[in-house]
Amino acid sequence: MSKNLTSRKEDYSLWYNEIIQKADLAEASGVRGCMVIKPYGFAIWEKMQSELDRMFKETGHVNAYFPLFIPKSFLSKEADHVDGFAKECAVVTHYRLKQGKENEGIIVDEDAKLEEELIVRPTSETIIWDTYRKWIQSYRDLPLLINQWANVVRWEMRTRLFLRTAEFLWQEGHTAHATKEEALEETSKMINVYADFAEKFMAMPVIKGVKSESERFAGAVDTYCIEALMQDGKSLQAGTSHFLGQNFAKAFDVKFTNNNGKQEYVWATSWGVSTRLLGALIMTHSDDFGLVLPPKLAPFQVVIIPIYKGKDQLKIISDKALELKKKLENEGISVKFDNRDTHKPGWKFAEYELKGVPIRLAIGERDLNNQTVEVARRDTLEKETLKIMDIEIKIKNLLNQIQDNLHRKALTFREEKTFIANNFNEFEKYIKSGGFVYAHWDGTIETENKIKQLTKATVRCIPFDNEIKEGKCILSGKPSKQRVLFAKAY
Amino acid sequence: MSKNLTSRKEDYSLWYNEIIQKADLAEASGVRGCMVIKPYGFAIWEKMQSELDRMFKETGHVNAYFPLFIPKSFLSKEADHVDGFAKECAVVTHYRLKQGKENEGIIVDEDAKLEEELIVRPTSETIIWDTYRKWIQSYRDLPLLINQWANVVRWEMRTRLFLRTAEFLWQEGHTAHATKEEALEETSKMINVYADFAEKFMAMPVIKGVKSESERFAGAVDTYCIEALMQDGKSLQAGTSHFLGQNFAKAFDVKFTNNNGKQEYVWATSWGVSTRLLGALIMTHSDDFGLVLPPKLAPFQVVIIPIYKGKDQLKIISDKALELKKKLENEGISVKFDNRDTHKPGWKFAEYELKGVPIRLAIGERDLNNQTVEVARRDTLEKETLKIMDIEIKIKNLLNQIQDNLHRKALTFREEKTFIANNFNEFEKYIKSGGFVYAHWDGTIETENKIKQLTKATVRCIPFDNEIKEGKCILSGKPSKQRVLFAKAY
Repeated sequence: MSKNLTSRKEDYSLWYNEIIQKADLAEASGVRGCMVIKPYGFAIWEKMQSELDRMFKETGHVNAYFPLFIPKSFLSKEADHVDGFAKECAVVTHYRLKQGKENEGIIVDEDAKLEEELIVRPTSETIIWDTYRKWIQSYRDLPLLINQWANVVRWEMRTRLFLRTAEFLWQEGHTAHATKEEALEETSKMINVYADFAEKFMAMPVIKGVKSESERFAGAVDTYCIEALMQDGKSLQAGTSHFLGQNFAKAFDVKFTNNNGKQEYVWATSWGVSTRLLGALIMTHSDDFGLVLPPKLAPFQVVIIPIYKGKDQLKIISDKALELKKKLENEGISVKFDNRDTHKPGWKFAEYELKGVPIRLAIGERDLNNQTVEVARRDTLEKETLKIMDIEIKIKNLLNQIQDNLHRKALTFREEKTFIANNFNEFEKYIKSGGFVYAHWDGTIETENKIKQLTKATVRCIPFDNEIKEGKCILSGKPSKQRVLFAKAY
Repeated sequence: MSKNLTSRKEDYSLWYNEIIQKADLAEASGVRGCMVIKPYGFAIWEKMQSELDRMFKETGHVNAYFPLFIPKSFLSKEADHVDGFAKECAVVTHYRLKQGKENEGIIVDEDAKLEEELIVRPTSETIIWDTYRKWIQSYRDLPLLINQWANVVRWEMRTRLFLRTAEFLWQEGHTAHATKEEALEETSKMINVYADFAEKFMAMPVIKGVKSESERFAGAVDTYCIEALMQDGKSLQAGTSHFLGQNFAKAFDVKFTNNNGKQEYVWATSWGVSTRLLGALIMTHSDDFGLVLPPKLAPFQVVIIPIYKGKDQLKIISDKALELKKKLENEGISVKFDNRDTHKPGWKFAEYELKGVPIRLAIGERDLNNQTVEVARRDTLEKETLKIMDIEIKIKNLLNQIQDNLHRKALTFREEKTFIANNFNEFEKYIKSGGFVYAHWDGTIETENKIKQLTKATVRCIPFDNEIKEGKCILSGKPSKQRVLFAKAY
């Protein structure tokens, strides 16, 4: 296992790619823009899924599954929606291959052309609202609170592992409500669920807010988002929750009889997070030595490595290590014991450092004699030798400390990198140095576009907890109601 | 909730469809051959997934994720494989839509034609073995024991909910081994895992065996399967485990250096079960009153229904019911309390009968006074009034009894419908009446095809625990080594 990781300072983008490669998280596949999520990376995603799924169920949602394919005509029904997604979609046109003439090999069978093309879902609002029409007649059928875990495809031209891939995994919630108020409440509830998950499990501080018009989901009335600051000073949109108004209900003619016997269109929300969260996780905590994982999402929280000479010593140390493993597991801690004889301890140390395992325990001959164990923290790289007595309690506490420390560190970083710009010069300077910049903006798309052209920064969101204080737009000088959050973004 | 379910005798196929509809399991979607799995149906699938995933992990497997799309050239590399799958696949040819001329609406952008067509995966051997080539160099990299949960697409012409749909959900294990013996052992191990799952969780008896050549997976050296007998006397293949030999290693040039320093091709297996299991579950246990679920896979095992007059009584009964619910949940029993005021108890009784909830508890005023509860079993439709004292223990035992009873009932059914045919006349008669028929077969594809033409029956498998006893083929009269298992099949 090579320790020669490119440093963040040297080449941030290369550092990111190297971590993904060397920590065995994912890799590019033989299919353009599509990734293979390797077992170690997938194990982190499984941890994320399991916590999110629990949170969705606790807030009253159930899972279901809708088709992968969307008829072209469905996608076209909501005007903004098709504008947003038609340019980057995979289109199925045929349903059969056949043996071609000599040297042609296997070719598409032109006799098997679909009457209507099918789009591989880029998101499922259209197919789901086409279904909801059949499920919703009366106010008694509402609310519908449904989530699905699925793969989606958006034909991105420039792809990056986890951050932007042609195919990715995600969950998409699609809810239907009798009133606008209830749908708005759901939109808020779910952005709060995402923020809780980000803060408590990913140890990643996020800003909650509402998107400007140009960054809004295609077909939404409003998009709420969580934004997190990465170590290169760029913002990453980590989750979105959309208030869809009655747009999809109107496009798919989904009405219900209210409790006064009147027909009304249904109100909708949709919300999602994706494997992009893995990119966010990597870039929030990792360092120049490799991946750093918060204990709550680590596939295993502790690795035990025996330091030994010869098979006899390995046997004695292994007995002790397995006893230790059991103690830790009884406390709900996940543990890997790496007793492979094919690799040296130093190689293993480097490997688990690269893989971000929160705590490494090493046991050698001296530890046996002294009833001790060497404990190394991945977050601070500190080592200490602890008495083995009550070690499971010490490790449990240490895992909590590491979880908290990672969050605190990320929060401190964000605070240091958050600026208030009072004029365009300041704005340019801060954006260039990287970070979140609060600045007045006149609220127009034109100004937003100009700012983007000049600085590459965009409005990330209008934070919910914003101080409402009037001022003048940093670019146009026109009146502004409040400062909004700018940054360059992934 | 209508109780007017078509009976099995009247129209078995209609009965099956009505159960799926009335128990809210799934429905056809707006996309040809693709289904929507509704929340109640999906909750059963989630239970199945969770048990299977645990069993896979306990046998050393890890999860990963591979691309949805397979380049046409990959599919073509293994000759048998492409023969098996080219005829029924969804082909992506373009990656963009655009606004057409007036009245055309949104059309496929011909400028965005893919250089090489992509196939929506019908199964992932090819894309996975293309990846394994990069992962496997030495015997130290073996075995690879990887599973993925995914959607797959096979463009079936005649579809049936759960049993045969264009898109379905499944898991596919793909393992790589250094030796033939190890790969064969894995193939057996996984068919045993499937059989255990079928017997213990689905309460569905299965026959384990090996497929004849004509029923073998396209690209496999051998296919092991589990076969279950449905109530109409047809067999359903519920899971398969394939020994792939070195076929895919050779097609994708995957070699490893063995521990003598020599290059060898890698040995492979693959194995899968799908949402088809939901079809099997329905057809194994359900009756003319609706779905019957084994307690181990029921989304909720117990439903409590209050029998009341007026809001005051509902309040008192609800307090008692919630107390009861808590007691049951403390024993690990999943419970739904249906206190909806919009539906009458009789309506609810019918609904949960249709939905196959294993145990229904009803509490009325008299029960409050007598410290009793009415307990109804879904499997036998028996009712009794029990003292509420220690009710959680009684219910726990009853759930186990129901689970066992369903298995016993299905096994008895299968035994009654299993025949030995000594000549073709007997064979025809038994096949016509429905069931498993053991008969001598000369082992040739020709004879198998003729038997199929004459009777619609095929060789389901050569059971592993078969008695080896020579005889003469029921059709050709040629020598046969053993009787094999015939049936008409889904």
